[in-house]
Amino acid sequence: MQTVMKYNVPDTDMIQELRSICGNEYVHTSDELLERYGQDETEDLVYRPAVVVVPADSIQVSKVVKLCSENSVALTPRGAGTGLSGGALPVHGGVVLSMERFNRIIEIDERNLQATVEPGVINEEFQNAVKEKGLFYPPDPASKGSCFLGGNIAHSSGGPKAVKYGTTRDYVLNLEVVLPTGEIVWTGANVLKYSTGYNLTHLMIGSEGTLGIVTKIVFRLIPYPQHNLVMLVPFDSAEKACEAVSAVFRAGITPSGMEFMERDAIDWVRAYNSDITVDVPETVQAHLLIEVDGNDMDVLYKDAERVAEVVAQYESGEVLFADTAAQKEMLWKMRRKVAEAVKSNSVYKEEDTVVPRAELPQLLKGVKEIGRKYGFKSVCYGHAGDGNLHVNIIKGDLSDEVWNNELPKGITEIFELCVKLGGTISGEHGIGLVQQPYIGIAIDNTRLELMRAIKKTFDPKMILNPGKIFMHKI
Amino acid sequence: MQTVMKYNVPDTDMIQELRSICGNEYVHTSDELLERYGQDETEDLVYRPAVVVVPADSIQVSKVVKLCSENSVALTPRGAGTGLSGGALPVHGGVVLSMERFNRIIEIDERNLQATVEPGVINEEFQNAVKEKGLFYPPDPASKGSCFLGGNIAHSSGGPKAVKYGTTRDYVLNLEVVLPTGEIVWTGANVLKYSTGYNLTHLMIGSEGTLGIVTKIVFRLIPYPQHNLVMLVPFDSAEKACEAVSAVFRAGITPSGMEFMERDAIDWVRAYNSDITVDVPETVQAHLLIEVDGNDMDVLYKDAERVAEVVAQYESGEVLFADTAAQKEMLWKMRRKVAEAVKSNSVYKEEDTVVPRAELPQLLKGVKEIGRKYGFKSVCYGHAGDGNLHVNIIKGDLSDEVWNNELPKGITEIFELCVKLGGTISGEHGIGLVQQPYIGIAIDNTRLELMRAIKKTFDPKMILNPGKIFMHKI
Repeated sequence: MQTVMKYNVPDTDMIQELRSICGNEYVHTSDELLERYGQDETEDLVYRPAVVVVPADSIQVSKVVKLCSENSVALTPRGAGTGLSGGALPVHGGVVLSMERFNRIIEIDERNLQATVEPGVINEEFQNAVKEKGLFYPPDPASKGSCFLGGNIAHSSGGPKAVKYGTTRDYVLNLEVVLPTGEIVWTGANVLKYSTGYNLTHLMIGSEGTLGIVTKIVFRLIPYPQHNLVMLVPFDSAEKACEAVSAVFRAGITPSGMEFMERDAIDWVRAYNSDITVDVPETVQAHLLIEVDGNDMDVLYKDAERVAEVVAQYESGEVLFADTAAQKEMLWKMRRKVAEAVKSNSVYKEEDTVVPRAELPQLLKGVKEIGRKYGFKSVCYGHAGDGNLHVNIIKGDLSDEVWNNELPKGITEIFELCVKLGGTISGEHGIGLVQQPYIGIAIDNTRLELMRAIKKTFDPKMILNPGKIFMHKI
Repeated sequence: MQTVMKYNVPDTDMIQELRSICGNEYVHTSDELLERYGQDETEDLVYRPAVVVVPADSIQVSKVVKLCSENSVALTPRGAGTGLSGGALPVHGGVVLSMERFNRIIEIDERNLQATVEPGVINEEFQNAVKEKGLFYPPDPASKGSCFLGGNIAHSSGGPKAVKYGTTRDYVLNLEVVLPTGEIVWTGANVLKYSTGYNLTHLMIGSEGTLGIVTKIVFRLIPYPQHNLVMLVPFDSAEKACEAVSAVFRAGITPSGMEFMERDAIDWVRAYNSDITVDVPETVQAHLLIEVDGNDMDVLYKDAERVAEVVAQYESGEVLFADTAAQKEMLWKMRRKVAEAVKSNSVYKEEDTVVPRAELPQLLKGVKEIGRKYGFKSVCYGHAGDGNLHVNIIKGDLSDEVWNNELPKGITEIFELCVKLGGTISGEHGIGLVQQPYIGIAIDNTRLELMRAIKKTFDPKMILNPGKIFMHKI
């Protein structure tokens, strides 16, 4: 079933029809815009579509979908284009469908602690809107200032709060979806418990825009925790830092943030952000950034003390407690800016490895050994509390020959190690385009065939986001 | 695609082959056992299978599945038979496959806060085993003393703790499954975050044994909360009690239990359990049973006071605080015994309605109005914090004619009300056999066709648990 599909290029008539569906000003064919919508945040990849449409509502989306289906034209839905696995790249050309006009928060239902939103709402804007009402929407990827909620659903995005509060999946109650046939359905109901047939909501979440286009979302919300404490813990050994992570959870504490950063990550962030003024002694090889939250400061102080006791058993250095909102913000900014700093420093590839939490030290050790074997440097950081380590492989002085031909062998070994440790090859970034060559490491052929058959069931003409997850050989 | 399938009756040769797969003593054809395995806890329904097999491991399960597939014999997997929607009833005869020998807790991994278990482990035994290690597995349906974890996965069972801790779905990381083709796969990885292709784990959960037979489960666990407080709050108005439910959450408190019981439920429980000695003034029409839990008693006392303040605004009576472990146990027993008491009292049907939490008062009001219209009495109780109300319709003096022909119209109206309020027709019991006539109220034909197509993808010969969820007209 590894079919190579043939797609048509939209002709003048079809583009005219797109204009009549979406309105003239919402159909783009200029070089500049085709170039812009041909890329996301994944490496330096560009795949130009033939046309970009920006529909206003689910009816227009449905019409565009039907038109693409009738004409056998590839259709790639797109959120904010902040993805890291190439999920929004129109690899088969055709139509890019941008969800940027789906930007309304339709209702914040304080009676039921729910919200109904459109998928083009920016994550942070939604968080702020519900916070004003004392409510909390926890998932916040590093790109929260620009990423769309719809894109978060495509990959079940996590972020630093996931360790206590779960990922996007844990907050979605119900989705309005335009199917690849153009039909519009709701996948579930607006309820906290659901046992009414196969769970299409959960099937849609994480399907990377290959099974349908989400046009409305009902989220559950929780009360906003009133207080938090943030601490930065230095370690002279990166492996010891990783060992401390699971010890904190075993001590009965569930932090609201548990982030790991290697020495280089912090050095690079400081080099690119002069306002980050953390002092890092020369011997320090890694940091944990730990947050606890809740509604009672006394309890938080006790938790923080207990955390300090636990990490001390792993040879931590002096713990920095952030006292003020400004200090907390600086520490979190330091973490959030790592990816940008790495990107500014060198061409790189980011792998989204994930293992059971206590296997982190083994993963980190293995990544470094594999790096030495293949001659690449890596900068590691990420959501250690979830066992989710972002491995940034740095091109630096490597030749293109080594980068293109040797590196994939090293990545293969890293992913094989993840699977051996009980983990998998993506925790929150998805497979998209760039991780496809590796999916067979985590998922055997029986499961891949089931996924392909599900895809075929939803999308018999295979027009929706083709070439992603498992359909495409690169 | 509403195909009526024809299944063969297992012949002597096939039964002989089943004996050679599972061992002679694990293949049953006696009248007594066929009768016993032909029923579950759903009403008084009995569907006798031709043969019952009790395999020991996934290899044997796979062989049985393949044999049934080759012979076009219906195969119904079965946990403890405690289901309330008829999911384990072999409505097409054939083979019942009992999972009772899959009763090992394979590993409790304290380093990673995970456990690997077989699906025939009893829920409460698993809870107790992890509690000994300071860990918590929260989902606990009323049948926790007898139900199997595999059955809990079939319906994503909830129970009273779901309001704070989520349902079974929220604790499953990975499943070993024998597919209807006999292939054995793992659906995911042992990780807290997963973005590696379609989420087959979540698709399997809640699929009621129609897509595969779960043979191993990896659960995540959390630290066991050290303390709790339990209170019983009486109300002179059942609707006011329902209104108080969402007010507690809006006040920023997330209780670890928030149960609603109508007057009759408590009276009946007291009539059938002489050790339950709660004093209930005559004016009281309903109770809320509320629990808060955590690791700090001071915080819990504050939470409990805050809860008492909130409920007082809804004309609650004097709050009973349970001081001792024995008192807490008695209050929870009162709640857990409601279903049994109702069953002892009369023939009944239980509907598993669920709506957004704040719509509970409207649901309750509607149920009573519909009852008056069709002349039936109902006793309502359930997981109010989740908006999940179990409506027990009492046969009492109703004629069989009214019970069989009029009642379904009343049930239809109740479910239509659920959907109108944003809810659905089952929160945790599943559709199984008995709710099938109503599924069209909650799920339109487009979605049903998607589900049927998914079923066909997994089970091309349609042998696994046929006649459940949506395949069967009754």
